[in-house]
Amino acid sequence: MRSLWLNTLTKQSLYRLSTKRYSTNVEPKEPVVKTKSIPGPKSIELKKQLDSVQATGTIQFFADYEKSIGNYIYDVDGNILLDVYTQISSVPLGYNHPRLYKVFNNEQNLKTLINRPALGVFPGKEWPEKLHSVLLNIAPKGLNKITTMMCGSCSNENAYKSIFIWYQNKLRGNAPLTEQEKNSCMINIPPGAPKLSILSFKGAFHGRTLGALSTTHSKYIHKLDVPSFDWPIASFPEYRYPLDENVAHNKKEDEKCLSEVQDLIQQYASKNPVAGIVVEPIQSEGGDNEASPEFFRSLQAICKKNGIALLIDEVQTGGGSTGKFWAHEHFELESPPDVVTFSKKLQLGGYFHNDDFIPNEPYRIFNTWMGDPGKVLLLEEVVKVIQEEKLLANVDVAGKVLKNGLLSLEKEFPHILNSTRGRGTFLAVNCTNTKVRDQIIGALKLHGIQTGGCGEISIRFRPALIFKEYHANIVLDRFRKVLQGI
Amino acid sequence: MRSLWLNTLTKQSLYRLSTKRYSTNVEPKEPVVKTKSIPGPKSIELKKQLDSVQATGTIQFFADYEKSIGNYIYDVDGNILLDVYTQISSVPLGYNHPRLYKVFNNEQNLKTLINRPALGVFPGKEWPEKLHSVLLNIAPKGLNKITTMMCGSCSNENAYKSIFIWYQNKLRGNAPLTEQEKNSCMINIPPGAPKLSILSFKGAFHGRTLGALSTTHSKYIHKLDVPSFDWPIASFPEYRYPLDENVAHNKKEDEKCLSEVQDLIQQYASKNPVAGIVVEPIQSEGGDNEASPEFFRSLQAICKKNGIALLIDEVQTGGGSTGKFWAHEHFELESPPDVVTFSKKLQLGGYFHNDDFIPNEPYRIFNTWMGDPGKVLLLEEVVKVIQEEKLLANVDVAGKVLKNGLLSLEKEFPHILNSTRGRGTFLAVNCTNTKVRDQIIGALKLHGIQTGGCGEISIRFRPALIFKEYHANIVLDRFRKVLQGI
Repeated sequence: MRSLWLNTLTKQSLYRLSTKRYSTNVEPKEPVVKTKSIPGPKSIELKKQLDSVQATGTIQFFADYEKSIGNYIYDVDGNILLDVYTQISSVPLGYNHPRLYKVFNNEQNLKTLINRPALGVFPGKEWPEKLHSVLLNIAPKGLNKITTMMCGSCSNENAYKSIFIWYQNKLRGNAPLTEQEKNSCMINIPPGAPKLSILSFKGAFHGRTLGALSTTHSKYIHKLDVPSFDWPIASFPEYRYPLDENVAHNKKEDEKCLSEVQDLIQQYASKNPVAGIVVEPIQSEGGDNEASPEFFRSLQAICKKNGIALLIDEVQTGGGSTGKFWAHEHFELESPPDVVTFSKKLQLGGYFHNDDFIPNEPYRIFNTWMGDPGKVLLLEEVVKVIQEEKLLANVDVAGKVLKNGLLSLEKEFPHILNSTRGRGTFLAVNCTNTKVRDQIIGALKLHGIQTGGCGEISIRFRPALIFKEYHANIVLDRFRKVLQGI
Repeated sequence: MRSLWLNTLTKQSLYRLSTKRYSTNVEPKEPVVKTKSIPGPKSIELKKQLDSVQATGTIQFFADYEKSIGNYIYDVDGNILLDVYTQISSVPLGYNHPRLYKVFNNEQNLKTLINRPALGVFPGKEWPEKLHSVLLNIAPKGLNKITTMMCGSCSNENAYKSIFIWYQNKLRGNAPLTEQEKNSCMINIPPGAPKLSILSFKGAFHGRTLGALSTTHSKYIHKLDVPSFDWPIASFPEYRYPLDENVAHNKKEDEKCLSEVQDLIQQYASKNPVAGIVVEPIQSEGGDNEASPEFFRSLQAICKKNGIALLIDEVQTGGGSTGKFWAHEHFELESPPDVVTFSKKLQLGGYFHNDDFIPNEPYRIFNTWMGDPGKVLLLEEVVKVIQEEKLLANVDVAGKVLKNGLLSLEKEFPHILNSTRGRGTFLAVNCTNTKVRDQIIGALKLHGIQTGGCGEISIRFRPALIFKEYHANIVLDRFRKVLQGI
């Protein structure tokens, strides 16, 4: 019954074709901008077509993903932009990477795409091996369990649920469930649906579904008009840069925020006890706000002292662009965080955790798909390429060039730029104000560089892991031209 | 720059190979059960391997998706089950459908898979056309806007947000946002984060993220230990069967529940005003609980009268298995529902709506991926096959055979079975109690039939749309044998 659809001969000729093809399909030498404005006329026409079907206010342009290659995104008007924003930081290996192209050049993988299982009930025979070889291979140190999901919001939502279940289980001890617990949760009230909370930080972004959104505080437009849980929100450090010239101020920031965390835990103990704290290693959407390794180590200590879980949200930071696969590796925590969520560059979503966060009973953390094995196949290849091509080392090299260049630009244009910061190629710089920031992002695009904003006044750089030193130099060169024109 | 990876010759030979292959790759004549119990020894071994990585309490067996074909799922122990549960109702065309296999036999489609865009910012050039030709092609009558998502929970969560935004916008009129609104929503409090609610029904299932879960009330294990919004919950009709012998009772049920809805709207007006009502056309996870077309028409009238939105959740019912593409078409509503959510058989998630539910400002309903164009390519082919092969008519024919057969079994085994119900092949039957129900589901599996439970005492049938009369007869024959053995 086994299909012979792709016989060996055909497989080999396909392989030759694809290898041959990709040896000639290379990046352009530099960006090309053909239209006076972006979106150009063809993008504007497509936007009109889309407008009759859905909201289009967020669309920057329409891309040609058949032509896009490596670090360059092609639009429908013939513009070729060096992409250092990469679909909101979600493209690990650039466009049309030949190794990804080959993933579905394979009968078994193709069948995985068209026979999507309910992974929690009828997983395919290869699932345990894939989880071991792909996901445990990249697991943060000390976390040996993985729950797969599909996107960042779902990952955080389900991680929160795991934390609530863990917390209540601790309170309950080994006591059996009461009828009151079973019945009250069905109508959304305590004790079955307890008044618990997740503590988050001002400026944080953890997603936009209603639980995740209650911990998101980066922009009002994300939250306006949506009901929210009354959960505690602490201040996040607001550092001054460069770090080595602002040690005292920044240390004070750490202390102030940590003391606020401790106060909020006490304050909420009687109304919505804190079961967990969620934090990004670098607040991304909120403005690339950093906190020190010491801050994170102290935060973990507060969690341990209060018996609450520490969830590190690596949806944007995970996958290598800080120079380590997980950004929290930079913090040298005393013990592993309790839960680490991921998505974006990792193709699917999910969270790593330890045994404590596996519920006692089945079906407590569950949904129809529980992730997507087709995306795991892509991730498998992504991870192989990262390891074989030593892309984390590449990130360090290219990141240093980009960061040093930004620091130089800061010095050249102190009235426009300041506060260059970040790790690896995960970098940002502040502008004088929002207007200037938006002006620069627009001008950079017309100079062939696709960046993105974050927070109120920051430009963020999120190139793919294949971004090299010479790409950094192109970015810096174009950036200088833009700044000269302001 | 355009890749020639699949040249014409290769494309054609691939096509011939695949066509040839599938002409011989046919369903078995009947189920085959080789092991004494399911999961068999190989599944149990794989489960052990998976156990070291994640929770496995919900796993029934490990499948071989390379071998599975049409209505038959193959497990790793050589068992071949006639699958009338289809991955919790999420497989439209059965396993390894040749038309789906061909979707990624295409350079452009393959590139769609490996260049996943942030659809809300940089959609591909083909996106507007795909939305028109694929999604608007199946849009519920009267709804001309589509917001794409990835799964059922996300679809409901974002549909709720659209409803809240719409509701507040009505209240606000054209007044500009106040600073108080902007600032308060950032810290989760009114007026920016208003106290609004979505009314749901007892027995409902709308997903498991925290917003969706506040409207889910089918089983305590889904909800226990998770904080919840205080949102109103009305009773859902509890019908007696057969419908034509219980008209008075069922009508009374409708009236009781509708009056409860009206009361709850008043009751919550002063604390958490109801902005929308969410309802399934058939409560699926909750036990295949039906309500009459009159019930739904009256519910819509209540919504209109109170200025609140009606959201019909077609995540499980949508896609054809009730004999119509959308189950709510059976209700002949006076006007379209305001929002219709979908996922599962439709491969991706999302919701249809009208212009009123497009927010005024960009980025209010948004996330990184906003769906998955690779899944739209699959949906495109699914819809073509449904239309070309007239699968909705097939569902009617096969469904009648299955339903009449279940009614006969009810008469043969009245001490075990009752309350056969449903539309098309979307059918269910009740058992005397939970223990008997679970016993039957287990025995059916050992007789080669994969079904699923729902509610406390029901067995649900969710075959693929390619399920034929002769498959129904196999199911009924095996079911009779199981009942004889009880």
